Amino acid sequence: MLPLHLQPESHIPLYIQLRDQLRSLVHAGDLRPGDRIPASRELAQMLGVHRTTVANAYAELESEGLIQGHVGRGTFIRNNGNGLKITPPAPASLSNGNGLRWELLFADERSEEILSRLTASAPMNSLSFVMARPDPEFFPVEELQTCSNAALRREGQDILNLGASDGYAPLKEALLEMLQQDGIPARDETLLVTDGCQQALDLIAKAFVRPGDTVVLENPTYPGASAVFHGVRARCLGVPVRTHAEPGNALGIDLEALEATLAANRVKLLVLTPDFQNPTGTSMPLASRRKVLEMAGRYQVPVVEDHIYARLNAQDERIPSLKQLDRGNLVIHIDSFAKVAFPGLRVGWIVAPAAAIGRLRLVKQMTDLHTDQLAQATLAEFLKRGLFQKHLAKMRKVYADRLRAVDEALRRQMPEGVRWTKPEGGMCLWLELPPGFDASELMIHARERGVLFAPGRYFYVQSPMPNTLRLGFASLNEKELARGVATLAELLKSEMRKRQRGTRRAERAHVALV
Amino acid sequence: MLPLHLQPESHIPLYIQLRDQLRSLVHAGDLRPGDRIPASRELAQMLGVHRTTVANAYAELESEGLIQGHVGRGTFIRNNGNGLKITPPAPASLSNGNGLRWELLFADERSEEILSRLTASAPMNSLSFVMARPDPEFFPVEELQTCSNAALRREGQDILNLGASDGYAPLKEALLEMLQQDGIPARDETLLVTDGCQQALDLIAKAFVRPGDTVVLENPTYPGASAVFHGVRARCLGVPVRTHAEPGNALGIDLEALEATLAANRVKLLVLTPDFQNPTGTSMPLASRRKVLEMAGRYQVPVVEDHIYARLNAQDERIPSLKQLDRGNLVIHIDSFAKVAFPGLRVGWIVAPAAAIGRLRLVKQMTDLHTDQLAQATLAEFLKRGLFQKHLAKMRKVYADRLRAVDEALRRQMPEGVRWTKPEGGMCLWLELPPGFDASELMIHARERGVLFAPGRYFYVQSPMPNTLRLGFASLNEKELARGVATLAELLKSEMRKRQRGTRRAERAHVALV
Repeated sequence: MLPLHLQPESHIPLYIQLRDQLRSLVHAGDLRPGDRIPASRELAQMLGVHRTTVANAYAELESEGLIQGHVGRGTFIRNNGNGLKITPPAPASLSNGNGLRWELLFADERSEEILSRLTASAPMNSLSFVMARPDPEFFPVEELQTCSNAALRREGQDILNLGASDGYAPLKEALLEMLQQDGIPARDETLLVTDGCQQALDLIAKAFVRPGDTVVLENPTYPGASAVFHGVRARCLGVPVRTHAEPGNALGIDLEALEATLAANRVKLLVLTPDFQNPTGTSMPLASRRKVLEMAGRYQVPVVEDHIYARLNAQDERIPSLKQLDRGNLVIHIDSFAKVAFPGLRVGWIVAPAAAIGRLRLVKQMTDLHTDQLAQATLAEFLKRGLFQKHLAKMRKVYADRLRAVDEALRRQMPEGVRWTKPEGGMCLWLELPPGFDASELMIHARERGVLFAPGRYFYVQSPMPNTLRLGFASLNEKELARGVATLAELLKSEMRKRQRGTRRAERAHVALV
Repeated sequence: MLPLHLQPESHIPLYIQLRDQLRSLVHAGDLRPGDRIPASRELAQMLGVHRTTVANAYAELESEGLIQGHVGRGTFIRNNGNGLKITPPAPASLSNGNGLRWELLFADERSEEILSRLTASAPMNSLSFVMARPDPEFFPVEELQTCSNAALRREGQDILNLGASDGYAPLKEALLEMLQQDGIPARDETLLVTDGCQQALDLIAKAFVRPGDTVVLENPTYPGASAVFHGVRARCLGVPVRTHAEPGNALGIDLEALEATLAANRVKLLVLTPDFQNPTGTSMPLASRRKVLEMAGRYQVPVVEDHIYARLNAQDERIPSLKQLDRGNLVIHIDSFAKVAFPGLRVGWIVAPAAAIGRLRLVKQMTDLHTDQLAQATLAEFLKRGLFQKHLAKMRKVYADRLRAVDEALRRQMPEGVRWTKPEGGMCLWLELPPGFDASELMIHARERGVLFAPGRYFYVQSPMPNTLRLGFASLNEKELARGVATLAELLKSEMRKRQRGTRRAERAHVALV
């Protein structure tokens, strides 16, 4: 029997109390690696609390890497839990026969958060706001097939042979032409093809960051970015993103906080998504972009500009990218085909000063030699035939309509006290629930009703705001968007009524959302 | 004027003297980052030595990362030379305007050796033994195109959409079937698709190795392997590979030296290529494989088995892979389509215990989300239609014929004192010149005659043997092989005659090969 003592009258939510007490038991050695802990239903009964409370505590401990579920066997204390010193047992006791205890060997003790895990155990046909990715319904499969055939017929031997680490020449040419039309200065020696933006971040981390270096990220940010920089053992600092403009404070990264962070730390890299930022959907106005570049020049910090959503502007104008404004050779600009076109083809690119590209090319070679050439050749053909621009124009319209639809649905349905960002493009927006609400709890109930989204805490580098969440709207049609928003609004309204009635039990006041 | 003083009568080769003196000048601060050093022709004249001497010294310093050539501008001391402490100047002096000095920002001070750099400045139509890669002439482009079309028609939407980090399901199924036929035990949860073996090594390094961890490699080994492990700041130890069997000492990694290394160090990983090892072409006999697994179990060290050449056996039998022999769940088996079929399609795989694959899947997701799905789907179709086995059978015959041809040419042409390995498959063999000969010097002269190869020193983790070189024979036909070997043999014979005549100048005795 576990020595757990929850206090319903405390101002600390019960699930937090439970999480902290379980963590202490592990640190004290009362719970040890390999120990099985009770199922959430079981423990909830033992403690006389709602099952949600236990589920939330377990979710937190799992995300800390302290516990792990094994299908069909239960939940266990992990061998490499955070904060645990691991003293490897003597070889003889280590294994069955000569088998290895692999979990003792991993380099990294953090447990990676995976958004897709959220969709596990959801009902079939759930409406998913979880991902920010294109709608497969619009993939121009036949046109792409024509391109791949044309390329293979013409240059099959080259495509299938080992290629250049900096990219397949015909694709580089096509990209340079597109970049020129975009007003982004680039030459062959300032352009590197990657397997997409995730790999671009990985290469940049390898090329520039040593263990202990400081990297500044937006807070909240794309979890794949913080994962990469944590992976190379950087010190990641999050600077707040303003999601609602106020007098004197524009949207996007907080410039005062950024200046303070740059002044107080020797920063190695600054990573920004100026357009339709993931997860908030906010864009930095022109003046902020200029100011960021001025600061970066003054503090001599390279800026990684994630341009992956920038082409998906709902309006006609686009704000110039950091790379276009860059007079000081400060910007490493990363982009990809994944949001506009086909995430299944892993092709992206980096535009950066030649010295940086030279280095990144070596790192790319060491990482995977080069990017797949069938995908590169196919996309080169897709660009050259004007099909990319055609597809982009179509998708901009589709996503602009969906953006309008989700915003309208929110305005129509959401109770007072809920606010959300007003992106002018991209694939996601950011909701703030009233203080005291927890999006992870909302998720548990929404999932039961067949609606999925990404709780905000997955996106924070630090100081997570539990009342936030991301809605990816791009892969749901307008009807689905309306239905999904209605379900979320109902759940919220129902909980608000309960809270107002004041009839809820002590636990609910602190924990359960519904 | 540089204070350089060479002693022709010393037993130390002139180029080594020159290299060491230049290095000392840099370390003493007499030569500083950004300083230009004389062109090799110019310095040779000033010192009264052969130009080759200076070229060799510069090549060594370049490979150490101490100097760097800039096209059209000359050769300069690098900012991030090995062993140099870099004190970044104050920001004001750092840049033109606010431009960054990118070379001060790189994470890693080592200069990566690139084999392909060797081919620079070679005459057109040179015969290249440099690479170990398939001959594009045999690529079944049309059959591949049929496969890609079938897959796109049937499952285009799935292919173009974001996919699973562990691999495209139809490819995983096809691979599991092939692995079963190979006798390599694998299940869905013990199989991960990668972008090829280079990425497999990168993922393994990220998943298992922390800075300072010890990794044991074969010496010599594939330079892409040591680059990856150096990249994560591992301590790389090379254990000698026996290239010629002797009584009591089998081919392949030296088992006594391996045991001693495992006993004296806490080793995190052991990386081996048991079949047709790159660069030596040697294979470990069955008894050695069993012994290695026994040791790995005893010392609890996971073994990475690079299986990339193993299918290219010239004979009918194959020695069982480490994975087949692995009773202790010790082996991480990596493989790829690159050597048998198409290196331009970046697809490979890892077979490892489920716990290791679970971890590698997370690292893969963090690295590039997943492998390109057009390539995966195309190769799945290629496998399912039996085209891979058909192509493999054909290529085994082609390469077996070439292996026989290169060995015959060597036996016919090479002067006494030169010896080479007798691989039973794969794509390369390993030459040893008589003591005192330097393959890097031979390379300079061979290149002028239009023949390229890879000097052995590129493959060493430590203690390079300058008299070794690798011949990649797979992408030259039998006539080309004979012609290339004849050129190399002529150059060697000519130098031997000169040495025998004893009429050479002092410098030549120590340095120049021809």
